[in-house]
Amino acid sequence: SYRPYRIDGPVAVVGVGLTGASWGALFAANGRRVRFFDQDSSVAAAGLERARAFVSFLIEHGLADAELAATGLQHLEICTEIEMAVQDVVFVQEAVYDSYEAKMAVFKAIDQSAPRYALISSSSSGLSISKIQTATTCPERCLSGHPYNPPHLIPVVEIAPGELTDPQAIKAARAFYTSVGKIPVVLRREVPGYLANRMSAALWREAINLVLSGVAGVEDVDNAIRYGPGLRWAVMGPHILYHLGGGEG
Amino acid sequence: SYRPYRIDGPVAVVGVGLTGASWGALFAANGRRVRFFDQDSSVAAAGLERARAFVSFLIEHGLADAELAATGLQHLEICTEIEMAVQDVVFVQEAVYDSYEAKMAVFKAIDQSAPRYALISSSSSGLSISKIQTATTCPERCLSGHPYNPPHLIPVVEIAPGELTDPQAIKAARAFYTSVGKIPVVLRREVPGYLANRMSAALWREAINLVLSGVAGVEDVDNAIRYGPGLRWAVMGPHILYHLGGGEG
Repeated sequence: SYRPYRIDGPVAVVGVGLTGASWGALFAANGRRVRFFDQDSSVAAAGLERARAFVSFLIEHGLADAELAATGLQHLEICTEIEMAVQDVVFVQEAVYDSYEAKMAVFKAIDQSAPRYALISSSSSGLSISKIQTATTCPERCLSGHPYNPPHLIPVVEIAPGELTDPQAIKAARAFYTSVGKIPVVLRREVPGYLANRMSAALWREAINLVLSGVAGVEDVDNAIRYGPGLRWAVMGPHILYHLGGGEG
Repeated sequence: SYRPYRIDGPVAVVGVGLTGASWGALFAANGRRVRFFDQDSSVAAAGLERARAFVSFLIEHGLADAELAATGLQHLEICTEIEMAVQDVVFVQEAVYDSYEAKMAVFKAIDQSAPRYALISSSSSGLSISKIQTATTCPERCLSGHPYNPPHLIPVVEIAPGELTDPQAIKAARAFYTSVGKIPVVLRREVPGYLANRMSAALWREAINLVLSGVAGVEDVDNAIRYGPGLRWAVMGPHILYHLGGGEG
């Protein structure tokens, strides 16, 4: 157990654009009761439809347990008030647009209505959870849960604590995300770009440099990754690769 | 046609350690007549056995046309003299160890005995083809054909010209490698690390930095690639990804 946090139970998604709808699909496909809230009711309706389509896709491609997903689909619902959406959940995934004003207002509202045992996780890619969590009375349960989009298809989720986050909340978040089929990776502190985007950016800088300096064309640079190390990186990470690599013979 | 070069016909592999044996397996699996030469007869014998095992693996896993590969296997042979190995081939893949002395001696011998229409390609990862080709009387047909190991499994081959290489030879090499199932990428000039290893190195520096600076553990850094962008890089290159990426929503 991860006291005072709970990981079994309903889940809310706040902000259900593309990323939020995808999160909701993932949770529903894993049998969770999911409540959607969006300030814009037309976005909420579109998000619900999109999430249903994502769940169907997962079932059709054998990526979800059909029985669990059917249960999730059955309970996937829109709440018209944020209080109703979060009142009895164990986990809130926030996915509103990247603005401190918007996210802090949302975190404040969630914190006021969600049970004390619920975790509140931000999908933010560019904002600091250390700052966002100061909008709440219970900052220790707030964390970053940054997806690599779309979260219902790409397994990794990057968990990062804010300065005021409880280490137990990080452990509970890892367990929660694992329970819905994610591969969580945990950062010991916030860094811009988390892990995956920082490494992508490094790869990119070199790719762009190779093209701009005239060494090779765009297509060839892409193919050098796609049909070379990219095939391995999908199976083994870069460090594991290092230990296996025995030179070029 | 790629006059004066030919791309249809027998192939020689000179130096049949792990990389050379893998090259030979690829050529044989695509129905080519393949001649192996290695200065060390026990290495040649081991290379032949290894290549046969690789071809069998490709057939068993549906990665080779069984009929073509059977033809290739039937004709896979060791030549005890380099002259015999290369005398009637259209393509020579050199895969001896990375030493200028060894490679230049081998290129000189190949150049003396191979038909004028044959290309000579070096597997070297760290040496300059501009220097190696000076050992021949026909440097314009010499080029780098750098594999990402093992070449019978990883599709990419990085083609680079030396200063004296004929552009027609580069075109012919691209066509030859394509004909045996490779994905060739062409560098306009030699650069250390070619394309794939330069981009790998950039990714790595960031991965190592993330671990050493205490942001995350080795396993989490690996998983961030393996279960995140690595999945995409195996399907799309980094540039294509850029054009598809629409932000983190």
